Amino acid sequence: LDFSTHLKAATGGRIGLCVGLDPIPDRLPSKFKGHPEPLAAFNAEIIEATSAYASAYKPNLAFYERFGADGWIQLGKTVMAIPKDKIVILDAKRGDIGSTAEAYADALFNGLGGDAATVSPYLGSDSLEPFLVNPDHGAYILAVTSNKGGADLQELTIDGEPLYRHVIRLARRLNKNRNVGLVVGATRTELWPGLLELALDLPLLVPGVGAQGGDPVVLRSLLSGYPGAVLVNSSRGIIHASSGDDFALRAGEEARKLSDQLAG
Amino acid sequence: LDFSTHLKAATGGRIGLCVGLDPIPDRLPSKFKGHPEPLAAFNAEIIEATSAYASAYKPNLAFYERFGADGWIQLGKTVMAIPKDKIVILDAKRGDIGSTAEAYADALFNGLGGDAATVSPYLGSDSLEPFLVNPDHGAYILAVTSNKGGADLQELTIDGEPLYRHVIRLARRLNKNRNVGLVVGATRTELWPGLLELALDLPLLVPGVGAQGGDPVVLRSLLSGYPGAVLVNSSRGIIHASSGDDFALRAGEEARKLSDQLAG
Repeated sequence: LDFSTHLKAATGGRIGLCVGLDPIPDRLPSKFKGHPEPLAAFNAEIIEATSAYASAYKPNLAFYERFGADGWIQLGKTVMAIPKDKIVILDAKRGDIGSTAEAYADALFNGLGGDAATVSPYLGSDSLEPFLVNPDHGAYILAVTSNKGGADLQELTIDGEPLYRHVIRLARRLNKNRNVGLVVGATRTELWPGLLELALDLPLLVPGVGAQGGDPVVLRSLLSGYPGAVLVNSSRGIIHASSGDDFALRAGEEARKLSDQLAG
Repeated sequence: LDFSTHLKAATGGRIGLCVGLDPIPDRLPSKFKGHPEPLAAFNAEIIEATSAYASAYKPNLAFYERFGADGWIQLGKTVMAIPKDKIVILDAKRGDIGSTAEAYADALFNGLGGDAATVSPYLGSDSLEPFLVNPDHGAYILAVTSNKGGADLQELTIDGEPLYRHVIRLARRLNKNRNVGLVVGATRTELWPGLLELALDLPLLVPGVGAQGGDPVVLRSLLSGYPGAVLVNSSRGIIHASSGDDFALRAGEEARKLSDQLAG
């Protein structure tokens, strides 16, 4: 199944919810203390509780790599627990020279089983292409990130246009297999009207709602009429809604709530 | 030991050789076929054969991640096999929002035991700072990369200056703990005179000699008088100089040759 078709089916033409699987050890419910694979076990319950409302899941690799090989195994098990009709985005923000980027794409798509990855554009086109050669896999290129420092480089003006707009043009040029998306932070919505026009119909991955301050109702209004597939991500606001025994129930409730807000 | 002192001791005031530990499975000598940990075993012999000539070792994480948890374990063993007086640079090119960057720094410095990491600047200052809070660890920020596509963004002109020069200014601002370095590709030496002036005395990590085309004699001449610590990296040209039984001997010879060329 090519990425574009898979994504369209997963979102069903609406703004899709993406659940960020970035578990923070201190915030895991007590039942996972002493568990041999706490991250994978926790994620499995989160996935089951939220899958009725989610189009996609997005584990960020940092939260697994910090536990070394053991974390990598738990990440693999987490990916396997995600239903096949969902989109699995491995949030890795990789970017390296061509032959190395091939090894990363192999690790993320073949090794871990991701459908898509996030990638960083600083090394340019030949660092991105290895993620795009197979139409079954996609890559979301960082354009505007949700952090404060994002503006340090992304909003520098080149020939009258901020850098992130040059990145969007690069993304458009690379979209031969209809598998290139953009990461656009929900915290910088003042940039969106012009940005959406430039993005044409590229798929968007929108981090930064909830804990980081982005407002889903504002997003929905801005995205009205945008023809591309959109995934809005929430991580902590869903998975760590509760640290008690009701964590899965509360995750499901928060996922439903955000999904409803995005649907309007 | 703080990074700046460690680096100075490892290079001894000369241009230091960095050996890139990026093993390609197809090019491993036949004795490693069927070995349970071929990458770690191969690297251990390479390290022993080259350590008289090397100031630093630089495994690129992609070449281990492609083997999943097993690759991660072999990377950890590789780092443990590197003598403590050398600099271990984990070439990861990470870059993510602050809280996630903290997790990556934890994975690379505490989990894997790296002295330094390479980092990508697209997300700006708050994505880089978590790698710099501890003066015992350093980060090399990508400025000018050695690949063809590097120019796509890095050489776009902002206010009369290419983007990579804005990155160098950002690196200077972040250098409060004397642990910020720059990645500057050996394939773009025409940019170097102005770049070295702007870099003041920041440590440099220079990829792109050998297989990628950079000339060590040209480098030495350009770097004459540069006050910062410099590491010039070669990967395949050393570790895959031979796929025969003489691979370690040949790696040692190539390391000595390059080290001599850099010393002048």
